[in-house]
This record gives sequence, structure tokens and C-alpha cells, in this order.
Amino acid sequence: MGFREDGQAALDWAARYLDGVGEHPVLAQVEPGEIRSRLPSEPPERPEPFADVLRDLDEVLLPGITHWQSPRFFAYFAVSGSEPGILAELLAATLNNVGILWRTSPASAELEALTLDWTAQLLGLPVGWHGHIEDTASVSTVAALAAARDATGGRFVVCSEEAHSSVERAARLLGLETRKTPVDDEFRLRPDELDLSNAAAVVATVGTTSTTSVDPVAAIADACAAAGVWLHVDAAYAGAAWVCPETRWSQEGVERADSLVVNAHKWLFTPMDCSLLWTSRPEALRAAFSLVPEYLRTRDEVDNISEYGPALGRRFRSLKLWAVLRCYGREGLQSRIREAIRLAELFEGWVRDEPGWELCARRPFSVVCFRRDASDEENEAILERVNASGEAFVSHTRLRGRYVLRLAVGNERTTEDDVRRAWVAIRGRAA
Amino acid sequence: MGFREDGQAALDWAARYLDGVGEHPVLAQVEPGEIRSRLPSEPPERPEPFADVLRDLDEVLLPGITHWQSPRFFAYFAVSGSEPGILAELLAATLNNVGILWRTSPASAELEALTLDWTAQLLGLPVGWHGHIEDTASVSTVAALAAARDATGGRFVVCSEEAHSSVERAARLLGLETRKTPVDDEFRLRPDELDLSNAAAVVATVGTTSTTSVDPVAAIADACAAAGVWLHVDAAYAGAAWVCPETRWSQEGVERADSLVVNAHKWLFTPMDCSLLWTSRPEALRAAFSLVPEYLRTRDEVDNISEYGPALGRRFRSLKLWAVLRCYGREGLQSRIREAIRLAELFEGWVRDEPGWELCARRPFSVVCFRRDASDEENEAILERVNASGEAFVSHTRLRGRYVLRLAVGNERTTEDDVRRAWVAIRGRAA
Repeated sequence: MGFREDGQAALDWAARYLDGVGEHPVLAQVEPGEIRSRLPSEPPERPEPFADVLRDLDEVLLPGITHWQSPRFFAYFAVSGSEPGILAELLAATLNNVGILWRTSPASAELEALTLDWTAQLLGLPVGWHGHIEDTASVSTVAALAAARDATGGRFVVCSEEAHSSVERAARLLGLETRKTPVDDEFRLRPDELDLSNAAAVVATVGTTSTTSVDPVAAIADACAAAGVWLHVDAAYAGAAWVCPETRWSQEGVERADSLVVNAHKWLFTPMDCSLLWTSRPEALRAAFSLVPEYLRTRDEVDNISEYGPALGRRFRSLKLWAVLRCYGREGLQSRIREAIRLAELFEGWVRDEPGWELCARRPFSVVCFRRDASDEENEAILERVNASGEAFVSHTRLRGRYVLRLAVGNERTTEDDVRRAWVAIRGRAA
Repeated sequence: MGFREDGQAALDWAARYLDGVGEHPVLAQVEPGEIRSRLPSEPPERPEPFADVLRDLDEVLLPGITHWQSPRFFAYFAVSGSEPGILAELLAATLNNVGILWRTSPASAELEALTLDWTAQLLGLPVGWHGHIEDTASVSTVAALAAARDATGGRFVVCSEEAHSSVERAARLLGLETRKTPVDDEFRLRPDELDLSNAAAVVATVGTTSTTSVDPVAAIADACAAAGVWLHVDAAYAGAAWVCPETRWSQEGVERADSLVVNAHKWLFTPMDCSLLWTSRPEALRAAFSLVPEYLRTRDEVDNISEYGPALGRRFRSLKLWAVLRCYGREGLQSRIREAIRLAELFEGWVRDEPGWELCARRPFSVVCFRRDASDEENEAILERVNASGEAFVSHTRLRGRYVLRLAVGNERTTEDDVRRAWVAIRGRAA
């Protein structure tokens, strides 16, 4: 009944879940509406024990969970909610700090600034950028492009055809238009095709969602500087890899960005949600968002993070990032990133060596794009069969008009055996 | 070293924290930069034990925590991260589901829809509204006003002078202008002063931030209907009170809203962040936000919640709301809301009966606005002294140009003794 007993039961549940997460079908094998149909349509009148919540989580909800924590989750970008990060979320919820101002949570405000500086050091980013945390890359992009719009007066957001859909969504939200630039044969924005007339910003991507291609940021930075256009770099996935110096070829030019987003909840082992947004022009973000009403005015001479983005109330998100950075250290982050890249390289080799299969894009990081030499329909059928088997969860994209399978390695639990099982499952489902 | 041992230590920490939360100074008694200066400026190279994180949380961060969980937190809107909600956050972080599509977390998508329907029933809202969760009221308002802008083509957001600053911030983000309408002598929007020319939306507030005044929503709804203007109702704080039928006088007209925001993390005992956004016009929200790229196209015939707001990736926030609704039930919610209102009424009586003090606004819910019959400077000094004592944390506002103290009851741990201690502290600090 008490917090300690209920907490013990919740902790046991969590520990058992993580121990056995590889045994579940990775993609939830339920029909739309199935989970809801098993729950009461009306709320309870009287209090129920927390044990009943845990029981229903197990019996009713669990079949409707797609297991992002599974070592054979290879869809989209595979992620890990690591153990220190999970426990830090328990602590953050316990403290329940609401960071509307520095004084409403000084530790949260200062730890957020510190952990963003730490992460900048780990990734080899310029010293002195202003960093804060948003929930998602979508919202980080909204914040950056709002600053760009107000700072430049431009009406267009320019990005490549391969940029993430959140760029167009953000532009629409901000009343801006999107202008898409063609890509070269490696899915990189072609700077010679850039049209910056009336542009507010260019969004360059390091690690596009389809193929993890890397836009030529340095050339784009040149064009932005010449035209007075804001450069926002979307490294939501691949930026984490910069913790390993051997990947920093993909960072060239990023030091000239006006803003940069890297999602710690993608490949930095931090549970959702933790999107890191840095800017070399903090005054432009403040100009776009700051509005301090009377009831929030204080005599403190401080940096209030809520003046740099759309939300006023802010969770204590830096606590989990701090826990991960400390419990893993630079070495622990590097070894995990390197292992994910190694496993992707291994898988890539298997595809390359297998007759009847082809690789569809260069692999800069931990994502492999591939397909069977067959129709789109057949490739789609393979994907559906693999995902329906529960053995692995793989997603797709479309490249040069063709349906392409995509295997993304990134969960820290993934082993060589898991990648091999995925390949066996995929090959075995080819007609 | 393992998850179970570290988890046990984290759980112990949380239990001890909650047991003793009333013993800390409520407002953190640190200078800007003090917390950060006690932490290393560089990230660790090697992994450190989780126990070190917990130790530093205690020794270094805790003095920089403003204790929102304290029973004597009376600033802004007092909140509770309740025990079932806290434990559900541990579970959500463990599952680490990222709800970009229904299939990436069917249980999360369906539980979100269900818990929003449950809450609508508890609050007496119309049947059939579409509900989903955003992080904060600021972002819920952005989502609603984006839909309003696109649906109406209007260029102005109209609200009262007492509306929350997030309305103006949202309007600015969306490229809209804000038109403020005067209020009457009870701080309610004056519908006879409404100018709806070229308006996209009116934001009516039930429970304004300064005084918790209630705009005449029914009259505003009439005007909106006549002009074809979107009606968004901001009941971020006070909407929770509707779980008690005796407060539903303040709901009149809300059934005609196009959108409504109620923050479960304010007065529904749910940890940050959990802002509930309902709409009677879901197709307008989808029109503003939906953009499904190839890699997210599936054959599922489902409602993808990410098409209704700015973020694509979404945390499993409904789990904590579900845990709270089940573990408290309608009766538990009602008794807590009623107790907060009772305590505020009590405090109001003490102020009324005390010579040299005055009440400054009607008290519809659990917030009391009051001041000493003295200069603004003296009232501000009282506030600063009380907050510096750590005995209670109280905030202020400005009404009719005068500095006003504000006591907000809302934490579930707050007892009559806590309110009395606050009053003794405040009275005792008057010069």
C-alpha cells in the first residue's frame, strides 16, 4: 500500500522486464483497438491498489507494447533507455521540479547548462555555445527556425529532399514555406542547387533519416554566411557518434552553425525525451521566445531557460543525461557507439555477400539500407513477414522510387547474435 | 552495481525524500552559479558508479532544489507529483516507448485516448471530444492556435489582459498578433469589449494565473460562433476542479469550445509533464500538423496522435495519468480538490479577519490574493523575507497596479497546520 512497497513492486517489474525484454515479439502483435477494448470505458469511482495497475500493465498493456528496449529493435533509429537514465527519471519524477524560472529549480537550470557543456565537450563542439533541452527534435527545430525567422525576416526554409519531415512541419507551424533542394547520388544536399533567395534558414542534415547521409555542411555554411541566412544543423541521430573522433569527418562545418540539434534519447542512451539544442546565437532565441509576465519577475540575475523555447514549464530532464554521462563516461559511450557501428558493418557485409540482395546506400554510421533484387511488393512482403514474426522489427524507406529495407543498430543490448538472428529472419522470409 | 541494487538505492532515496520533504527550506537558498560551481567542469572519462550520482544528488544538488513537493509550496500553482504517478514514470522510462505512430506503441496510443476520455467523464466534459497529451499548456495552446489560424485565416488572437503570457508567446510563434481585451472589476474578460475583426481565435480563461478569475465563456462562445472564430479555453489550473460538481458553474459555455487545455500536472496529482488538450474539431488539428513521410507510412487504419501536435516522438505519458486516476478514483480526486479549496478558504478568512491586511480578489478556487495595507515595497519585502526563511514559498502578482501576494494551495500533502504556518510566517514578517 505504501510508497516503499509499491515502489518495490514497480522496481521488480522493471528489472524483470529489462531482463526478459528480448523474449517478447518486438513489434506489438495486436489489432487497432484491441488494447482499449480490454480496459473499462469508465474511470473508477474508488481508489484501486497500485498492484492492480501493475497487474494490468502486465496482462492488458504488455501485448500492446512495441519493445523499443529489445535488442532486436532495428526500426527507425534504435534507441536505449539505459539503466542509469531510467532510475534518474524516477528521481526526477520524485522531485517533480517545474523549471519555469531559475529560482523554481536552480539545480535543474544549472545542471542543464552543465550537462549540455559536458556533451558539447564529448562531441567536440565549439566552446561557449548555449545549450538547453527540448522534448523532441521537432520542437528543437521549431525553436531554431523561429529564431531564424525573426532574426532574418526571410520566408523560406531550405533543406534537401532527404531532410526530416519535421522541418516542413516546423516551417508550416511558423508560417514559413519550405524549399527543397535536390540531392546527389549519395543523398546529400547539392550546394550548387541551393536557392537562398528570401530564405530564413537552411537546415543541413548530418545523418538523414532514410540513409544517414551527410550533407556538405561546410559548403552550405559558406552559402549561408554569404547570404546572411541562419544555418540549423539536424544531427538528431548521428551527432551522438561524434563522441568517437573517427566519425568527426561528418562534423566539418558544423562549428559554423547558428543552431544544432542532437537527440540524447536517440543514440546517447537517455530515455525519451531529451533533445539537445545548442546555439551560437542565444540572443536570437531569446528574442523569439522571451516574454516575462509580472508574476514571474524576480530580482535574480540569471538565465531562465524557458526564454529559449516554446514551453514555459520544464521537467528536470538534465538529471537523466547527467546520470548517463557519469555512469558511462566518455569511454563507455565510445565503446557502445563503436559496437553499434561494427554490428551494422557486419550486417552490411552479409548483405553484400549474399546473392539476390543489394545494398542501396552508403553506410556512414549504424544504419544499413538494402533490398532483395525483386519487386517493391516482394520487399514489402518480406518486411511485413519479419515484423509479424516478432523476431525483429525493421522499417523501410523509399530511395530513387524503390522500396528499401532499413536496419538500424543502436540499442546497447544488441549483440552480434541479435543482428545475425535478424538477418536469418529476413533472408528466411524472402519468397 | 546492477539495476536491482541501484534501483533499490534510488527507491530508498525517493522514499526518504518524500518522507522528509517538509523539512527542507521550500525555496532553494542558493546564489546563481553556486550549484554549478560545485560540479566538475569536464565530463568523466571513465564510468562512475550510480551510487556516486545519488551521493551528489544529495550533497550537491539538493540545496539547489526548490521543493515543489513540499506541503508549504504555495507559489504559482502548487502541484503534486503523487506516488502512483512517480512510480508510473519509472515504468514509462523502463518501457521507453516512442509514440511516433500507433504501431510503435499501440498501448501508449490507446491508453492515451482512453485516459483522456476517462478524464473528460470525470470533469463532466462533452462526450466524443478528441483528447491527447502535450508537455505543457504553452504547447497545447500553440497546437490549438495553429489549428485556429489555419482553419479561419484570421490574424489575431484575442484574449483578456489577464490571460497567461503563453497565449502571446504562442501567437508570436505562429506569426499572429495578440489583441487584449479589458477585464471587469473581477478580472474577467468583458465580452462587450470583444473585437473579433480578423480574429483567428479567442482564448478564454477559466482560472487566470493571477487571481483564478473565470471569463464568461458562454458569452464569449456566442460571439465566437457569430464571427466564425475559434474558441480555445485555457483551464490549465482550474479545469481539474470540475471533478467536483459544485465547481461546474465555472464550466458554463466550455462545452461549446473548439479546444480546451487542462494540465494534469497542475491539480490532478500527475508529475510533470502532462498537459491534456481536447478538441471538438480534430480534423483542424490534423490539417495543421499531419505530414506523414514515406518511412512512417503503414497499412494500419489508425489515429496517430503525433498528427495532432508539434512533436513527432512522444513519451508514454498516459501511464502516469492512468495510475493516478486508478489509484485515486473519482472520490480520491474529489476529496483532495475539496481539501485544497477548504484550506484556501480558511486562509482567506484569516486574512479577512486580520487588521492591516486585505483581500485583493474573489477566490473561486484554491488561490488567495492578498496584501498588507502598506506600500508595494513593504509587501515585496514581506514576500522576500518569507521566502528567504524557507518556511514557505509564496509568489506575487500585480493587480490594478499594486503588488499583491498570492497563496496557492494544491499540494496533496498540505495540511491545515501547513497553511497556518505560512500565515504565521507571513504575518510575522510584516514590519
